[in-house]
Amino acid sequence: MISPLNISSAEFRSRCDRLLECVNDASLSGVVLFDRVNILYFTGFTFIPTERPMAFVMSADSERAMFVPRLEVEHVQSATDIDRVDHYLEYPDDPHPMVGFKRMLASMGMAMPAASDIGADHDGYPWIFGYEGPRLSESTGATVVNVQGDVNRMQALKSEAELRLIRESCRWAGYAHELLQRYTAAGETETTVSMRASHEATVAMLDALGPNFSAQSWPQTGPRAEYRGQIGRGGTIPHTLANNVTFRPGDVLVSEASCPIWGYTSELERTMIIGKPAARQREMFDHMLAAQEIGFSALRPGVTCAAVDAAVRRYYEEHDLLPYWKHHTGHGIGLRYHEGPFLDTGDHTVIQAGMVFTVEPGFYVPDLGGFRHSDTVAVTQGGIEILTDYPRDLESLLIASD
Amino acid sequence: MISPLNISSAEFRSRCDRLLECVNDASLSGVVLFDRVNILYFTGFTFIPTERPMAFVMSADSERAMFVPRLEVEHVQSATDIDRVDHYLEYPDDPHPMVGFKRMLASMGMAMPAASDIGADHDGYPWIFGYEGPRLSESTGATVVNVQGDVNRMQALKSEAELRLIRESCRWAGYAHELLQRYTAAGETETTVSMRASHEATVAMLDALGPNFSAQSWPQTGPRAEYRGQIGRGGTIPHTLANNVTFRPGDVLVSEASCPIWGYTSELERTMIIGKPAARQREMFDHMLAAQEIGFSALRPGVTCAAVDAAVRRYYEEHDLLPYWKHHTGHGIGLRYHEGPFLDTGDHTVIQAGMVFTVEPGFYVPDLGGFRHSDTVAVTQGGIEILTDYPRDLESLLIASD
Repeated sequence: MISPLNISSAEFRSRCDRLLECVNDASLSGVVLFDRVNILYFTGFTFIPTERPMAFVMSADSERAMFVPRLEVEHVQSATDIDRVDHYLEYPDDPHPMVGFKRMLASMGMAMPAASDIGADHDGYPWIFGYEGPRLSESTGATVVNVQGDVNRMQALKSEAELRLIRESCRWAGYAHELLQRYTAAGETETTVSMRASHEATVAMLDALGPNFSAQSWPQTGPRAEYRGQIGRGGTIPHTLANNVTFRPGDVLVSEASCPIWGYTSELERTMIIGKPAARQREMFDHMLAAQEIGFSALRPGVTCAAVDAAVRRYYEEHDLLPYWKHHTGHGIGLRYHEGPFLDTGDHTVIQAGMVFTVEPGFYVPDLGGFRHSDTVAVTQGGIEILTDYPRDLESLLIASD
Repeated sequence: MISPLNISSAEFRSRCDRLLECVNDASLSGVVLFDRVNILYFTGFTFIPTERPMAFVMSADSERAMFVPRLEVEHVQSATDIDRVDHYLEYPDDPHPMVGFKRMLASMGMAMPAASDIGADHDGYPWIFGYEGPRLSESTGATVVNVQGDVNRMQALKSEAELRLIRESCRWAGYAHELLQRYTAAGETETTVSMRASHEATVAMLDALGPNFSAQSWPQTGPRAEYRGQIGRGGTIPHTLANNVTFRPGDVLVSEASCPIWGYTSELERTMIIGKPAARQREMFDHMLAAQEIGFSALRPGVTCAAVDAAVRRYYEEHDLLPYWKHHTGHGIGLRYHEGPFLDTGDHTVIQAGMVFTVEPGFYVPDLGGFRHSDTVAVTQGGIEILTDYPRDLESLLIASD
């Protein structure tokens, strides 16, 4: 299970220690995390979420435990060095799994009559995949304090090891995108080109990284490069879904490439044009590039997220481009494809070295297309490092049509 | 957007009407659904979830509305015939999106001082992807009643149109699995074989179904057949993740194939063996097959889910096989890869025609492997129809090694 690319046991331990500080600062009896990504972040354990509740628990005296169904016992034991693994038979079963969970919490000094409040990312296992059950506050009688905000703040600051994984993700996303661009041509279809590029890049990556590598991001096992329907006129809808569109000369395209590396991801998006760009297309492309440059320049430690977005929005205003605006400048990224903080006028978080953002102002022009590059950047002591290594200029992103 | 394979506007309307009955029965002022699958079920609209809250709202007097970020306005307008689309600029922005949402609810006769309780699938947009915000009960002052259980009960009963989509899903999952089995061989690797089969089956499906088809299940666009690490000794962990294992003679394999068709999925899993099976492997395979047959026979309208699982568990007991048991007999399936009800001794739901289940008792034998077939079956008036069409006998599932 050990690989030079993975996060060390010591790092998982130190994340738990930081979480423990939140627990102690708020005088909680302990903390319960149900979310898949939160569990991965604090334990290194990844799994397929279903109707069966799973939880990571840490008591105020730092005992770390997992609560899992019978199905996952050997899996969690083989993947983590957690102190304690309790299990229930099945969901819903009789008694309900939460009966055993309450007993486990009590044995850890939580959920007892005299115990203090419990921190949690959700008040009970969320009702997903058919699960139904009591809230944690109902089943334990404890007051449940939402700690997801604290967890978000922790996850926003990346360690050197995390940056190494995100850098590796950028490398393979870039390679998949290179293939995507190479195979895209008038007459080809969206899905065929996307699958071919993703498939070949995944095989190359697995060969390069060797058998100890794990994506830890089911169902994705390697890089994916795609268009998500942002092709020609469909490109004016930023998050449409793949529709297997056939490429035509004159189409403006907005791609996306990503790659899970031990759970961590990154984002690379490029605006490309098939054939000779129309004057208006070239003009909007240039605006997009200029707005992204403003985002890069504004982003540095000590300024707020809001200030970065405000600088970019000023460019829209000054050039009468607000009708083409649809979203903020960027978002945090790491174990989730979107995470906080956000480069948004409403987010007053002060930017720190170690944060990782996408920078991706977009322009959506009816009947012309969508224009958006997205680069993944890490904030450094002195400014930013652009982790994405892929051309941004128009000439490099033209696709011949003849 | 219209295709003979899709769900009709009338059917979306009648689902909303049934939801309205729940609203009126409980004297609610209306209902709010945040979950992606719930929104798809009642409106036909699908999207990529992010930090930006989205909601489907229906008032007690049956006005249907969507609340979306600016980013999704044209997307939702082009994909649904919803009465009303309200939007906010961005998340987090200032004021927070929930301020506008409260205003919208009030204008629909919900969240007003004198209004009754609000039904919801979650008390506010869940804190996913970095979102943080007030609970619905906090921001509106209303009492929020959890209606996810009612929604689960509705979604469990499939219409003819839904069964047609699930049947189509089974067809393409079967085709992808056929390719998976064909390409699997000693010396090949898990990911290469899985990607090749999934890729080719997706291209074939898109060719066959034509350009109007949409998977509505980002990021998946077509059939996927894979092993999820259940290979050889890894097979004793039911839900491990792909590890790019190299196949070896003597390996017992547990596959999985699925395919999103306008959002609907199905499940096909097969136990396969590379080379000549050992006597003990053959014996466990036969037990697995016998237990699945018991599940098929027990499953019919009028009996409880618990009774089906109890019949299967009796087989484990009678043959001293409980040490190899790890999970219940099966689960509902449709828009989610797992959904209620569950073929589990603790689920006392009475089975009805129109429900769709997987039937998949498993046996996990240390140092030998995992043994599980999963078939997707629809409950009919007279019993069941097995929608999965793929051989189950050992001879058909042997992979030559020489």
